[in-house]
Amino acid sequence: MPEQGSVGLVQTQYVTFAEPPNEMPLDCGGRLGPITLAYETYGELNADRSNVVLIVHALSGDAHVAGRHAPDDPKPGWWDAMIGPGKGFDTARYFVICSNVIGGCRGSTGPSSINPATGRPYGLAFPIITIADMVRAQAHLLDHLGIEQLLSVAGGSMGGMQVLEWATQFPERVRSAIVIASSHMSAAQAIAFNAVGRHAVLADPLFRDGDYYAEEGPAKGLSIARMLAHITYLSQQSMHNKFGRALRWADRYSYDFDSEFAVETYLDYQSEQFVNRFDANSYLYITKALDYFDLSVSYGSLGKALARVQASMLVLSYSSDWLYPPCESEQIVQTLTRLEKDVAYCCIESDYGHDAFLLEVDVMEKIIGGFLRNAGEKGRYCAKKPNCACVTRDAVVNRRDNSIYDGRRIDYERIVDLIEDGSRVLDIGCGDGVLLCQLMREKDARGMGIELDQDSIVSCVQCGIPVVQADIDKGLAGLPDQSFDYVILSMTLQVIKRPDIAIREMLRIGRKCIVSFPNFGFWKVRVMTAFWGRAPVTRNLPYPWHESPNRHVLSIKDFRNFCAAHGARILKEIPISSHGRTVHTADFWPNLLADEAVFVIAAAEGRTSAGR
Amino acid sequence: MPEQGSVGLVQTQYVTFAEPPNEMPLDCGGRLGPITLAYETYGELNADRSNVVLIVHALSGDAHVAGRHAPDDPKPGWWDAMIGPGKGFDTARYFVICSNVIGGCRGSTGPSSINPATGRPYGLAFPIITIADMVRAQAHLLDHLGIEQLLSVAGGSMGGMQVLEWATQFPERVRSAIVIASSHMSAAQAIAFNAVGRHAVLADPLFRDGDYYAEEGPAKGLSIARMLAHITYLSQQSMHNKFGRALRWADRYSYDFDSEFAVETYLDYQSEQFVNRFDANSYLYITKALDYFDLSVSYGSLGKALARVQASMLVLSYSSDWLYPPCESEQIVQTLTRLEKDVAYCCIESDYGHDAFLLEVDVMEKIIGGFLRNAGEKGRYCAKKPNCACVTRDAVVNRRDNSIYDGRRIDYERIVDLIEDGSRVLDIGCGDGVLLCQLMREKDARGMGIELDQDSIVSCVQCGIPVVQADIDKGLAGLPDQSFDYVILSMTLQVIKRPDIAIREMLRIGRKCIVSFPNFGFWKVRVMTAFWGRAPVTRNLPYPWHESPNRHVLSIKDFRNFCAAHGARILKEIPISSHGRTVHTADFWPNLLADEAVFVIAAAEGRTSAGR
Repeated sequence: MPEQGSVGLVQTQYVTFAEPPNEMPLDCGGRLGPITLAYETYGELNADRSNVVLIVHALSGDAHVAGRHAPDDPKPGWWDAMIGPGKGFDTARYFVICSNVIGGCRGSTGPSSINPATGRPYGLAFPIITIADMVRAQAHLLDHLGIEQLLSVAGGSMGGMQVLEWATQFPERVRSAIVIASSHMSAAQAIAFNAVGRHAVLADPLFRDGDYYAEEGPAKGLSIARMLAHITYLSQQSMHNKFGRALRWADRYSYDFDSEFAVETYLDYQSEQFVNRFDANSYLYITKALDYFDLSVSYGSLGKALARVQASMLVLSYSSDWLYPPCESEQIVQTLTRLEKDVAYCCIESDYGHDAFLLEVDVMEKIIGGFLRNAGEKGRYCAKKPNCACVTRDAVVNRRDNSIYDGRRIDYERIVDLIEDGSRVLDIGCGDGVLLCQLMREKDARGMGIELDQDSIVSCVQCGIPVVQADIDKGLAGLPDQSFDYVILSMTLQVIKRPDIAIREMLRIGRKCIVSFPNFGFWKVRVMTAFWGRAPVTRNLPYPWHESPNRHVLSIKDFRNFCAAHGARILKEIPISSHGRTVHTADFWPNLLADEAVFVIAAAEGRTSAGR
Repeated sequence: MPEQGSVGLVQTQYVTFAEPPNEMPLDCGGRLGPITLAYETYGELNADRSNVVLIVHALSGDAHVAGRHAPDDPKPGWWDAMIGPGKGFDTARYFVICSNVIGGCRGSTGPSSINPATGRPYGLAFPIITIADMVRAQAHLLDHLGIEQLLSVAGGSMGGMQVLEWATQFPERVRSAIVIASSHMSAAQAIAFNAVGRHAVLADPLFRDGDYYAEEGPAKGLSIARMLAHITYLSQQSMHNKFGRALRWADRYSYDFDSEFAVETYLDYQSEQFVNRFDANSYLYITKALDYFDLSVSYGSLGKALARVQASMLVLSYSSDWLYPPCESEQIVQTLTRLEKDVAYCCIESDYGHDAFLLEVDVMEKIIGGFLRNAGEKGRYCAKKPNCACVTRDAVVNRRDNSIYDGRRIDYERIVDLIEDGSRVLDIGCGDGVLLCQLMREKDARGMGIELDQDSIVSCVQCGIPVVQADIDKGLAGLPDQSFDYVILSMTLQVIKRPDIAIREMLRIGRKCIVSFPNFGFWKVRVMTAFWGRAPVTRNLPYPWHESPNRHVLSIKDFRNFCAAHGARILKEIPISSHGRTVHTADFWPNLLADEAVFVIAAAEGRTSAGR
């Protein structure tokens, strides 16, 4: 009886291909063959073979990603928390495959394998391999299994790089892709750390030019490399929380050079474990593959590489990851967005550093599980799902911290009415996506949201809404001029720091922009100010002055003047009363009678690029 | 003819002390002697020996901090940019001393020195030394030079740790102290990096248990340790800016394990340079001293250690330093502030990482130069300096980004009038310190400021005003209950995110609190709102709605109600007209006639700790 949520007992399987003279060509110019890949599978392949999820592993991972090889195995596979019935990668729905990379030492062909030319282990005669080579070998495995297309390919760290290679090298074979805690290239610092680790291996006299398999290997060198790498997987904060300055064995300093701090003995232990299961030559080859990884090189630029993507993409980073910091994920996301690809992005708050991708299971389960469920549907928006949360929750009061709303959002109906069928729409501050979902459902809009709040982003992804975590106050430089039919900023203008900059960016990006805001010129506001002498509190300005998230107060008249001064043409102006009725009188009266207003604006002629 | 601003040609000098049987006792329980210290001096010692500045160096530094040993030296001393006539440490004013630490290999006694017991180099027979031991040896040097008290002691990184030891071990000998890019203890990550570096040295077969002086030393191990350490001195961003993914020799990958990326060859070069000038045993001893450093251990807690400080303290950190991150400096600063010590703190914006303390010369010159000039005066505030900028600038219009002010600050006069002589005052959002300076000058106040803006902090330090960089919106948890006579928040309430939390913290910290703000109930504001229907723009609310830094609008009436609801007693209420006159009529009218208001409030009885 397997544990709850476990895939139970599993076996590693093997496939061999690229038998001479049909060796697989490599990026370095050499050829490799025969190639054996070690792999495992979990769950059941469905009849039309449309439920396949490929998991790709990081530097020290292997094919054994879930379950146990024997009932008394002390540990399950390396991502068991995420893979199993009911888990993030739900093996009750999906057929999950994971294979050890070429160059590795866990069953796939690598430098410790027998070189057919000599009958001895390859050692340094093994050709240099790249991330792209690893992925090409995985494609052979899929061919062998008779799988044409992946529902999804997912991986963290070096796995994320393989995912990017999959999505660009084999765009037609990938319906969705999940890039976690990764980068589109190894940056200088990451290269530097890998280089120092390799120096440690190469400097070990037992390394013997890589020809050490018959004798004791370069354990000291490899252990130094691993200790160093291990530090980069944690964060300053998580190391401090876990070890602080605690001593391991004693309550006072030993005043010698033995390991005595808990963090030292932990690294000693971790590196010893690693040396026992990992081959030093594989460490050299795989770190070199990492260093060489730069998605832009094969196609000329990151943009040209990602232009090939057909998959819907989910990119996840972690706030405290300093090995592959969020800004690198954000470059991928910005490029995909600019290319109008289907992409969702979240930087998950975590103290765990790079290792967070193995540890932040709760939020990853929600976001990845939601993303995969939508990836499985062709027209994948809520229209297809009558029970989707965002349909049933329409009646629910939706009050968020950064919203000034405390009741039904009467501006939403007006906004939906304004938008033509099939428009491409950007909703800035989209919250949990109610408006976007409605636009997709009723207007067949191609929508995309921008949001800051992590929980809201999870909700959007669960509804299949492409949402990118970004801060409008930091600008939207990634989005090209006039790339959306409509850019919407609903009831958000008053909470952002620099509304003038936001509007300028909106006019640049959107052919038309829709802005709604609470009207500070509303008569109730005026009465409270003028006669009571107090900061106003109304339905649309519900907060006492000291708790208000509203940074700015403006009236319909203010906004009109602002548009005139900032190169915006007003195409439509819809003042709305507190009963939700349009206020029809002209000029002065709307400002007095409207509780809120919806404006449609566009850049004045010749001012399209005014913002740059 | 020396270069402009250079100390010119200098010579290293030597002093020997602790001759047996009077060896110096060490923290480890052993004794060391004789001890030779290599040192250099620059500038002239004045008659009363009151102008001495001691510079203490980091891991790989030495006594040669400025000038050149020979005219054709390719490089000057390691901190030449900061030390010389007219520089941050102005040798036209100060007598600057720097000595190589014990355990080092640059002229002072260390593991490469001859062990008098054997007539051969100490090697690992050298006793383990601590930062405190280094400082005790420096005290012997001062005794030798006949110097009783230091005007200042300053250092970055490990130097900052020595500064902290100086200020706590010899409080009466230190008038001021400058702690730069440092920490009160080595945290887990820093220990981990040092430990890996030592592993690399110890694993080198040429290390021979430290007894390598007659033969080739452990150059490979030491070079790996140095490469690793060097990465921690830079930031991700600075490495990216400097190297990116550039290749050093070719325009395509070499597909082998040689160094090929520019960042690799840079590390190779740097570590080769280092190996040529540094002793591997010294590297072990000094990194171990770093690991052992924890100011709290000797005295029981960080608070008990810093309670001993008599010096005025300047603490500097750098935004991108991840080896000794700003939060560690902030722990020192918060503890000093809690203990009512004289402390100034700035986290300097920089991309350079830990190395910023060697590179951000411009801002350091201003802030350190200003700090030292004030450290030289006994009663050190502007009263003593009729030409101080803050006196002459009273007439100057003072408009800052985070101020709503666009003319003379009429609330300042009222606030000064309210405060009793000799009060301890905290000014939150103190700007460049004009109000604090006036309070110190006219009311003999013991003042302290809190500010976010770096330039304003530099101005404060230049005026001798203790100022700490902190964000009121993140709370003031470091400051104890009722620790100030007055806490002032002048014209700032409306720009902070959560004024309710700020006021709660103020009431907790201050026996009385003074709050001034622009009155949203002012008749001009009401008229603009009520009849023009526009967001108000007045003298005190000078910004158009979309540029306003004001997050909140409130009236006198709002503030009264707020106080009633939040456990604040109103002790005094001073409505001020736009002509600077006090509005005297009661209740309703001040709200209508006052352009701004000054309130004195205190926690209601029994509510002192309400905020916690």
